[in-house]
Amino acid sequence: MKVTVTVMLKTGVLDPQGKAIAHARGTLGFSGVSDVRAGKVIELELSETDPAKAKAAAEEMARKLLANTVIESFRVSVEG
Amino acid sequence: MKVTVTVMLKTGVLDPQGKAIAHARGTLGFSGVSDVRAGKVIELELSETDPAKAKAAAEEMARKLLANTVIESFRVSVEG
Repeated sequence: MKVTVTVMLKTGVLDPQGKAIAHARGTLGFSGVSDVRAGKVIELELSETDPAKAKAAAEEMARKLLANTVIESFRVSVEG
Repeated sequence: MKVTVTVMLKTGVLDPQGKAIAHARGTLGFSGVSDVRAGKVIELELSETDPAKAKAAAEEMARKLLANTVIESFRVSVEG
């Protein structure tokens, strides 16, 4: 079962990578972009077949290993 | 209009960050994970209101700026 964990910096936390992308975008001439936020995505292949249990396991992993919950928020989505 | 660009290493390309997560996961005692792939997610806030045009703009940006298409693949999703 494939589970995707998306980790983003919380609103209000400075995002230098996003700022760099926004700046490069301006230099390259892409207009009409008002905000850019950059984050991480981690795709896990779990042996668990129950979607609810797989989501719970991924959430625990995200809290303890994948995200720094002081400055980052995460969301978990289960596929298939 | 919010557009999310997800950039992942192509299948077959060595993913050291994913390998490191898989290793740390083992050390922390999370079992039942057979594969871990790590990637980037970029959330763009576009002024464009037509979903098709917003997607096309984000795809061009992904090709030219956000992804290294030699080793990375990307997917674009439009929200709202």
